[in-house]
Order: sequence, then C-alpha cells, then structure tokens
Amino acid sequence: MKVLVTGIDGYTGWPLALHLLARGHDVVGIDNFVTRRRVKEVGADSATPIKPFPKRIEAVRELTGKTIGFHKGDLGDYEFVDRVLRSEKPDAIVHLAEQRSAPYSMIDVHHAVTTQVENLTGTLHILYAMREHTPEAHLIKMGTMGEYGTPNIEIPEGFFEIEYKGRKDLLPFPRQGGSWYHWSKVFDSGDVMFASKIWGLRATDVMQGVVYGTRTPEITDNRLLTRFDFDEVWGTALNRFVVQALLGLPITPYGAGEQRRGFLALEDSMQSLRIAVESPPPAGEYRVWNQFDEEYSVNQLAEITQTVAAEKGIAATIEHPPDPRHEAERHFYHPIHEALPALGYRRSRELPEVIREIFADLRRYRRRIEAKRHTIAPVVRWATGDNRSAVHGRAPTSTVTAPVATPAAASPTGVPSSE
Amino acid sequence: MKVLVTGIDGYTGWPLALHLLARGHDVVGIDNFVTRRRVKEVGADSATPIKPFPKRIEAVRELTGKTIGFHKGDLGDYEFVDRVLRSEKPDAIVHLAEQRSAPYSMIDVHHAVTTQVENLTGTLHILYAMREHTPEAHLIKMGTMGEYGTPNIEIPEGFFEIEYKGRKDLLPFPRQGGSWYHWSKVFDSGDVMFASKIWGLRATDVMQGVVYGTRTPEITDNRLLTRFDFDEVWGTALNRFVVQALLGLPITPYGAGEQRRGFLALEDSMQSLRIAVESPPPAGEYRVWNQFDEEYSVNQLAEITQTVAAEKGIAATIEHPPDPRHEAERHFYHPIHEALPALGYRRSRELPEVIREIFADLRRYRRRIEAKRHTIAPVVRWATGDNRSAVHGRAPTSTVTAPVATPAAASPTGVPSSE
Repeated sequence: MKVLVTGIDGYTGWPLALHLLARGHDVVGIDNFVTRRRVKEVGADSATPIKPFPKRIEAVRELTGKTIGFHKGDLGDYEFVDRVLRSEKPDAIVHLAEQRSAPYSMIDVHHAVTTQVENLTGTLHILYAMREHTPEAHLIKMGTMGEYGTPNIEIPEGFFEIEYKGRKDLLPFPRQGGSWYHWSKVFDSGDVMFASKIWGLRATDVMQGVVYGTRTPEITDNRLLTRFDFDEVWGTALNRFVVQALLGLPITPYGAGEQRRGFLALEDSMQSLRIAVESPPPAGEYRVWNQFDEEYSVNQLAEITQTVAAEKGIAATIEHPPDPRHEAERHFYHPIHEALPALGYRRSRELPEVIREIFADLRRYRRRIEAKRHTIAPVVRWATGDNRSAVHGRAPTSTVTAPVATPAAASPTGVPSSE
Repeated sequence: MKVLVTGIDGYTGWPLALHLLARGHDVVGIDNFVTRRRVKEVGADSATPIKPFPKRIEAVRELTGKTIGFHKGDLGDYEFVDRVLRSEKPDAIVHLAEQRSAPYSMIDVHHAVTTQVENLTGTLHILYAMREHTPEAHLIKMGTMGEYGTPNIEIPEGFFEIEYKGRKDLLPFPRQGGSWYHWSKVFDSGDVMFASKIWGLRATDVMQGVVYGTRTPEITDNRLLTRFDFDEVWGTALNRFVVQALLGLPITPYGAGEQRRGFLALEDSMQSLRIAVESPPPAGEYRVWNQFDEEYSVNQLAEITQTVAAEKGIAATIEHPPDPRHEAERHFYHPIHEALPALGYRRSRELPEVIREIFADLRRYRRRIEAKRHTIAPVVRWATGDNRSAVHGRAPTSTVTAPVATPAAASPTGVPSSE
C-alpha cells in the first residue's frame, strides 16, 4: 500500500516510515520541521543526535535501496495539502503532524492558540483534501489516551452504550482533556468523527498511551536514530527519569506520583499503526482504538528506572516536587484495550528491558545530555497564565545567560507521542 | 454591574445591550462588524433595515440619555482583547462574538477553518485576558442546544451522573455537533470548562435554543431595530417560513420535517441572559444551562406559520425539499431545562403571537425582502465539500448575474442564535 505519513521527521513518524518500508509498503512523508525548531525554542535538544532529514533519506537509500517520497510543507497551507493528496493518492494517511506537547501548549496564550489552531486546521485540511482526492483512503489519526482524562468509570474504546433514565443510546465517551494540547486532540476527534459521518470517510482514531524507547528493529544504524526528548516541555516522564538517573540527579515524579497512564514501547506503537494501515475499516466507519498495553503509575516508572539504574551501578534517589499540572494525583484508571489484540497485536517489548536499552543508548550521548540538564526541571505551570520564562528565562547550568530562543513559527507539523 | 457584550452589533447582542441598559447596568460592547460583511458575501441582507453602529448608539443616547461604551476590534487580536479587559474591568462578559451560521461553516474548507479557528481563538483570548485582568468576573458564553445533537436519551444540563459497569461518575454529557459551526461551539465548551477548572474562573455556558422574533420591549424606535436574516445561510427555518409566506412562496421544511429543536423568543433570550448576568456562579464553577422554553418540530413551525398567514389572508402551501443537511429527520428529543426556571425565569412570549408581530414588522419591508428572495432556497449541502456557488453563483430572481460578493475577512465577531 501507499502510505502518507504526516510528521515523518518526528519521534514516531520516522520509525514508522522505516517499519512500513520494511513491510513492503510505499512511504511518502510530509514535514515542516517545526518540532526541531520548537525544541530549540525552549533551549532543549534531543539526547540522540538526529540527522537532517535529507541525510536520513539518503541513509535509508544506501542501507536498504529504498526511496522515501517527501514533500516539505505545512498542513496549514491547504493548497499544499491538496496538491500532495492529488498527486500522491495514498491508500492510507497516518496523521502525526501536530503540536504534541502539553506543557508547550500551556506556556502562554499564544502557545495555547497556536496549538489548537494548528492541530485543528491541519486535520480539517486533510479531511477536505481526502474527500476531494482520496475518498476511499483510510485516515489513521494520532490522538491520545489523555483525551479521556481520568474518569471514575471504565474507559471504553471511544463509544459506550449507556442507559440513562430508562432509555439507551450508543454515545461517544465524554472527553476531559488535561491541557490545551489534550483538548486540541479532543477537538480533532470530533471533526474526524463528523467527516466520517457526512462524507463516508473511513478513519481510525488512535487514543495512544505514552510511548517509550529509542529503538525499533529497523533502526540498524546510528544515522537512522529517532529523536529522544527529555526536557520538561518535550520529554515524557520516563525519559526524564532515565536522564536524571544517568546524570546523578534525583528522579522526580510530580506530586503524589499515583497518576496512572497507559504505556507501550516504540516498537509496539509501530506494530499497532502498521496493523491499522493493513486492516482499514469499511467506508464511513469511524473507529476508536485505545492503543497501549500496560498501565503504570508515575511512581512505578520511577521505581523501575531506579532498579535498572542500580543494575548499572547508579544509586538514584526519588523526590516528589509539587505537580505543576492540574490533574488528579490519585485516581481510578481502567481503560479497555481490546480492538488491537483482536486484530493480532501482541506485545513484543517489556518496560525494564527497554529502559536498559535506553540507558545503553544514552550513555554514548552523555555530553549532549549534560549540556541540557537545566531543561529538565519544570517551569511551565498550569495555574499560571504566563510561563514565558520557559522559553526565555531558562538558564543553562546555574548562570542566568538565556539560551538562544527561536520564536515559534505559526504553522503546523510535529510529532505526537510525548505528553 | 458593568457588562461587556462581545458581538454587540448582532441579532442578540444589540437587544441585550438595550435590555441591560434598561435594567440599570453599564454596558460596553465589542464588534468588528464582520457579520454585516458576511451576510453581503452570500448576497443576502437583513429584512429589517439596521442602522450603522454609531447611529445606533446615537439613537440610544437621544432616546434614553444613556451611553453605551464601544471598542471596535477583533477578538482574534489578543492585544486588543487584553487592552479592553484591562481598561474596562467588567463584572460580566457576555460572549456572543462568534461565527454563528452552520451553513456558512459548511460552504467549503476555508469557511470551515475560519469558523473553527475564529471561534476558538476569540474564546481562548477572552479566557486568558480574564485570568490576567478580571479573574473574579463572570463569563457568559453563548453556546447552542445543537452541541448535543439528537441522542436517544434525555439531555441533561451539561453534566450527568452515569453508572457504567458497576461504577459511577458525574461526566460532561457527550456532544455530537451537526456542522463545523456546531463543533466549534463544542470545542469552546471544552476550553471554558478547562479554564474554570485550572484558573478558578466562573462561567455559564449557555446551550441556547433557536431564537425567534423582531422585537423586545426596549426596541421602541425603528432606529433601534435588530437584524432579521431570512436567507438560507444566516436565517433560521422560522424566519424563512414567515418570509416565504409573505412572498407567496411555499413554506419549505427540509426533509421529513420531524427534526425537533428547543425555541425561545428574543425577549426571553434577553430575560435569560440578564438572569445569568445577575446570578453569577461561585468562583471556579462552570455551569451549563439549556436555554429554551418550548420544543417544536420544523413541521409544527411550518403549520403555525401557515395558520398565522391564513389570518392575514395569505394561503401558504407547505412543501418538503430534500434536507441539505446530514441530520436525523425523525428522532427522540427531550432536553431538560430546569436551571433557569429555578432562578425565576418565566416565559413571557408565545410563538404564534410573536409570528404575528414578525408578519407586521416585515410587511413594512416587503421591497427589501423581494429583492433578496433568491437567497432563501438552499444551496449549501452538507454532503458536498465545495459549495462556493452559495457565495459566487447565487442568482437574483432568475437571471444568472451574480450578486456582488465580498470575500470573507479572516477575523472573528458576529452574532449567535440562528443556526
């Protein structure tokens, strides 16, 4: 099949391109490289050195003999989206090109608006261009388990049949985002559901858990490495914990640390998205998948990281700074995940083994990590309307010299998965 | 109290300003007059002649001795919103300044994006400026009963306690918009709910039914008339029906005509919004009101209009063109509306009597209505991605000469209520 991957330069997009190629699919990508710029905007950098995109494609060609098609451009530009879909006519579109950081969306009013406007606009543009040029294609839209919030009842896969005052209906499960970013994904879900209904498009809305890991079987050469963010804005909690242990810093779960989330390994995220590509729903169906394979509390992540660190001779401590977010620190959490296993999904990686692999990978890049240790501590606070110091006031080590900050380009594309 | 009305030049905004003034409140308004331009964009016009905004204020001053404050500007411009809230420090903000037409949002990809981006951005800008300058103020946000769609169960006021697989939670009622416009209001609801939660803002999210009528007790002079749209894009079904009867055209409920909705008179919408202003919730509370007082099917509206027309000696017929929308043409509909009556709301107007008043008002403007009769028939179809003929190809009477079309300005503000 021919698969268009939007956000192909990102944490998930790049390994997905490699995985789909290895499975014999044709891959075409879109990116505007805005995530690279925005990580610099907050003074951070990927722990893994990632090649400029043309070098990535060149390495793939050299190593596999295969070609990845690419269109540099912005999903906020409808003429661009229209042109790509008209010329490429993909069978499936995996839409990963969104602003993907919750803290980034909470920096200030402009980051809030940019996040919601870009994510909505990009998705609407894809939906309209699909209707025009590829009405039979399958849209696989990256959402997040975070769309559901933490309700006190089981979380079904998108829809649930409820009885209320003696009557029944099958309804979308209520969403309760935890940041402007999470709400932007909730909004996208509404638009994709509606487009499927009025135009008969087929879509899979992926409520993905938190993804971890540096490697997939296709990353056989360091030129193929994907990015690994560990700063407070772009990195996940687990990524920060591993880096903290490596640097001899305390591991810092926010607040009580009993926040529970669903997780899956990068390799299993690739497996899941590949299953979605290869098993499209019928025309007009909007299906929702809860895409993760195990739940952990943040404290469990901290403890597993501490255990693996100890194996490596590192005695890491655990500390609990106040939670900068507005979220339940202890709560019921029981999401269903049945759709993917029913289509053959089997977990291939376990968390402790992947954490060992991350330690091994990152040790080689210790100098890069040291240089950005000041980006780990939380600056962006949910209760504050203005967190611009996260962009402008962050000091490397302990001096007050501000890192160079590039203003955010007002335009889409990025890479989902960390939140 | 000092009340800021965004969209003060609109169908609801203008009579609300008059009503609040009459109740002794101070009123300040914002508008960018984009609705006036956009009604022209589709070749339509208000049946009632409405004065330019400065003349409106002048007439108020002459008739009542009172002054309405005004800031011309765009909610898409954060510096403007910030400046107005900082200088005015209102006690309440009634936020009506959104693109309010479902068909307008369905014209094509650009109208879809404009609708969602403007509505979201304006609301986010208000929330941030409130947090900064008036954290104690009360936001009254105009939403629509259309956010709920037509579920097969009762519709509570925003939240419902449900039991699911043996556990209970109080959750937001699931929303299912019927156009990009309706979804934009759903998205706003999410953002307002979230801002209340993280910043302790107080908010009333008004799920308003369809508003009808030309008059309120404060409209004592024709210079104070509010707009009355009857074209397919900006007019409500009832407005079209009255105009069809007046012009000797068949009354045309779309499809089966069993679509049921909640309705209320313009005067009672003013009563409701005034109650909201005068009874703010405690800090941090996000409350949702279903604001309407009676349900009708579209067929009932057609029949009541036919009956009133007969009293005036007009023998109107009823025809059923295909429904251009994607909606259930027969469905269960039972929304709750208890919050407003509990605060003293009492219905003051009945539908047939208001229809008589509309007939009387419109007869004086027969020539204006005749000139725009070609804008009544539906051109915008939900199933189509491109309905640009609604903007450019609409023919006055039966010639093919296109009316002058002004391109949509990419900027917020307007007036809610018709959909």
